[in-house]
Amino acid sequence: MLLCDVGNTSYHFYDLENDFKEDVKSFDPSTIEDEVYFICVHPTLKKRLRALPNWEDLEEKIDKTPFYDTMGIDRIVACHAITDGVIVDAGSAITVDVLKGGVFQGGFIYPGLKAFQNSYATISKALRYDFNTQVDTTKLPKNTQDAISYGFFAPLLKEIRSYDMETILTGGDAAILHRYLPDAKVDRHLLFRGMLFVLGRELC
Amino acid sequence: MLLCDVGNTSYHFYDLENDFKEDVKSFDPSTIEDEVYFICVHPTLKKRLRALPNWEDLEEKIDKTPFYDTMGIDRIVACHAITDGVIVDAGSAITVDVLKGGVFQGGFIYPGLKAFQNSYATISKALRYDFNTQVDTTKLPKNTQDAISYGFFAPLLKEIRSYDMETILTGGDAAILHRYLPDAKVDRHLLFRGMLFVLGRELC
Repeated sequence: MLLCDVGNTSYHFYDLENDFKEDVKSFDPSTIEDEVYFICVHPTLKKRLRALPNWEDLEEKIDKTPFYDTMGIDRIVACHAITDGVIVDAGSAITVDVLKGGVFQGGFIYPGLKAFQNSYATISKALRYDFNTQVDTTKLPKNTQDAISYGFFAPLLKEIRSYDMETILTGGDAAILHRYLPDAKVDRHLLFRGMLFVLGRELC
Repeated sequence: MLLCDVGNTSYHFYDLENDFKEDVKSFDPSTIEDEVYFICVHPTLKKRLRALPNWEDLEEKIDKTPFYDTMGIDRIVACHAITDGVIVDAGSAITVDVLKGGVFQGGFIYPGLKAFQNSYATISKALRYDFNTQVDTTKLPKNTQDAISYGFFAPLLKEIRSYDMETILTGGDAAILHRYLPDAKVDRHLLFRGMLFVLGRELC
């Protein structure tokens, strides 16, 4: 059995021991012979995968009523992995979702690090810097690179800390946020845990 | 005498009673016969204006050492208008600067409303919405439009409120932020007040 989280750029597989990625553009999903439980955020690709006999869309097993119609299936599945806490999935967008007693309380979306950085560059050439991912968010900056880096990190961190709940970080930029949220837990398999929960199993 | 704040898109004039704007592309500054004190964020245009006999660049009268080298002259001048408080200039970028006892404490830059909105659209078509500028920032959202609107407003507001100081709002989107910061003061002439301070006068 394989689990697979299909994003816009890659297939992310997990065989309950190891995980590996395949490129959405070049990988042929029909080459997989195992049973695959998947979720997919891409509508066209989702249709194609559903047509394969050994690929089963977990989305069909999920009751979405506690969430909302246009909420990404990846966020919904991640919410199945925990009962209480804040899930921060730091990818191309940063989604922040809150659960209390297993009930979804709501969540918000912040642009991901790259998108945020690029948005400064669209405003003015003078703001075209890479972020300082170690900017001190405890004191106000006095140079341009830090001023935009602080603008990305400090407000987001204040928002997340304001919930005063256990925080779980996942996604490609989890490690960067972990520096600022040392008490948070990093769980790169959170989504797969959610998928297993939906399948009625527990990850050891 | 006229004051003029020259931005990337317009000349913003103030005759100490009324203010008016002229387009940077179409307006000929040599048609002004009055004495003009100006600041200009655009390097090429600044050079051209300095060459005009009746246009005097206020930037030359300003000691920038309490600030930093690459800080925009508009932010520096605005900082001359107050002694204590937080200046939020909500334009194409949102600059947030803090002063205590007349001393610049530092500041940060957040993308402006339009740039922030556009950055979601670059991440995914599914995030292509106009912001709900009346989104409730006191509870976590449960729909996509509110999830991105909250992502723009709530973290920024938490950051600004964390200073617990008098807040002055200026710039084109000041009114939108004022809804969320009702105790803040809106001052559309803040920059001109700063220019007058530099000139050693006081605005009545």
